[in-house]
Amino acid sequence: MKQKIAIGIDIGGTNVEIGWIDNQGEIIEHHKVKTTEFETAKELVEIVGQRILDVNRRFSDKTILGVGIGAPNGNYYNGTIEYAPNLNWDEVIPLAKMFEIKTGLPSKLTNDANAAAYAEMLYGGAQKMKDFLVVTLGTGLGSGIVVGGKVVHGHTGFAGELGHIVVSQEERLCGCGRNACLETYASATGIVRTVRKMQKEKGLSTDDKLSAKDIYRSAVKGDKIALDAFEYTAEVLGKSLTDYIALLSPEAIFITGGLAKAHKILIPKINETIDKHSLKIFKDTCKVLPSALIEQNAGMLGAAALITREAGAL
Amino acid sequence: MKQKIAIGIDIGGTNVEIGWIDNQGEIIEHHKVKTTEFETAKELVEIVGQRILDVNRRFSDKTILGVGIGAPNGNYYNGTIEYAPNLNWDEVIPLAKMFEIKTGLPSKLTNDANAAAYAEMLYGGAQKMKDFLVVTLGTGLGSGIVVGGKVVHGHTGFAGELGHIVVSQEERLCGCGRNACLETYASATGIVRTVRKMQKEKGLSTDDKLSAKDIYRSAVKGDKIALDAFEYTAEVLGKSLTDYIALLSPEAIFITGGLAKAHKILIPKINETIDKHSLKIFKDTCKVLPSALIEQNAGMLGAAALITREAGAL
Repeated sequence: MKQKIAIGIDIGGTNVEIGWIDNQGEIIEHHKVKTTEFETAKELVEIVGQRILDVNRRFSDKTILGVGIGAPNGNYYNGTIEYAPNLNWDEVIPLAKMFEIKTGLPSKLTNDANAAAYAEMLYGGAQKMKDFLVVTLGTGLGSGIVVGGKVVHGHTGFAGELGHIVVSQEERLCGCGRNACLETYASATGIVRTVRKMQKEKGLSTDDKLSAKDIYRSAVKGDKIALDAFEYTAEVLGKSLTDYIALLSPEAIFITGGLAKAHKILIPKINETIDKHSLKIFKDTCKVLPSALIEQNAGMLGAAALITREAGAL
Repeated sequence: MKQKIAIGIDIGGTNVEIGWIDNQGEIIEHHKVKTTEFETAKELVEIVGQRILDVNRRFSDKTILGVGIGAPNGNYYNGTIEYAPNLNWDEVIPLAKMFEIKTGLPSKLTNDANAAAYAEMLYGGAQKMKDFLVVTLGTGLGSGIVVGGKVVHGHTGFAGELGHIVVSQEERLCGCGRNACLETYASATGIVRTVRKMQKEKGLSTDDKLSAKDIYRSAVKGDKIALDAFEYTAEVLGKSLTDYIALLSPEAIFITGGLAKAHKILIPKINETIDKHSLKIFKDTCKVLPSALIEQNAGMLGAAALITREAGAL
């Protein structure tokens, strides 16, 4: 019997990752391109689609089941990306259909964070859990909500926009055009803004090219502002997660994405904040954990799972 | 065949309502007692349980299936009420078990707002909906969350505490011991606090016995402070519901409970707030509506449904 392979594409604000995944969740081939290389979705489909066709030619001994896509503002019901602020695509794009036409393979699409939740449930730390949340801290903040063992899509297919709950009265413009959304604080770009604000308040000059990675390196070296920024980020996120727990009472919350590389600094403070602010009935009921797939690309694995699950290969 | 009847008990901060409900959702007998008459849960079970036994004697021509209970902080999984601030029962009470012993009937319990959600789904405005929310505006604020056609209980059984998400930095002590929970604004007691605050700010004296009903009457007469208080209440609630929509993307949100009698003032302003603050992808996707059961006791109907559904009578 031919080996069955699903292709998973994870489209983030920074990178597009493409993986060829077998039915055990093993990545047998992995490509990566910068998202900024593409000015339009059409260009992305053209180039990534061609890459897929090229690789598939080498895999003629395997059965390629299809293409799963995880993307910000992705809609599971109709395979579109709609008004994704972090991709600068301010329109409705039928991405699944476009990949289907380019590659000739069945294609399915979901929110990038929902894909991460699928991956956590199938291959990660949530394998025995019915109620959990996956938070992706990347360019923005995404979330995949699982209730009763199912990823929540909601009435519109867009459920899971934890990154866009409003957390403050402070002026901090969000990519979505609104103000003080959670992702303007708790994300790689958010922590940069926090450090810049702290530097400004102290009359210090700021580095135009400052990145979340720089802040993490400084924090590890004991830099006060960097550590304060991580603490503040964890507090803002921790308070929002306390509200989430009051609403949906998950068993665990998994943190993943680029900024989650700093989980050893972030997570203890997030747990401390939740512990301090939780309603009595929720004390010690939910643990915040790093994703078990943090060193892998959970979004890519989960996107592929959209296909393997449909094909009954799992 | 004997007529099948389920008993539904709705325990609120103000009243305990007991209904004998047939399998069409018709209330064939309805009793009401003040919650404050009981100092302990034991007393409540003793008196309400006796009332049930007395009425059942008259109903010997019917089959009484059991007792369903809706109560604040009720836990569906284990039939307990835990630390219910609005009942002043600061402990874990096995209420379902206690009713079972007193009445000799199988008893089940859930959160009062979850019961309202069951009722809306079975007999009310959500009969064809898979994703919706019921918000009960009474002494406190409760919520019953329905995702994919199922009431969400969460890992602990306590999901749905929308009333205890924190909405402000302002000092406004909540019954739960924390600060500025949504229910300290959006509830019958919350709007009284808002009016008192507004009166104080204007140097006006305040009536110690002021009730939400008084405020409603004043608002209908065009009183400026009363109208401002309703507008403010709707705005605070509307902003929280905007966040809820971003998370779970419901098809509709139903408002019920005592304060919802003022829905003609409240709901247009709530919808306006959601419309103003919603993320683009959620514009016009969710309508806020008065519960279709607003003039009946949805909590009582839903509590009874816990029993009828189990017994397969629906």
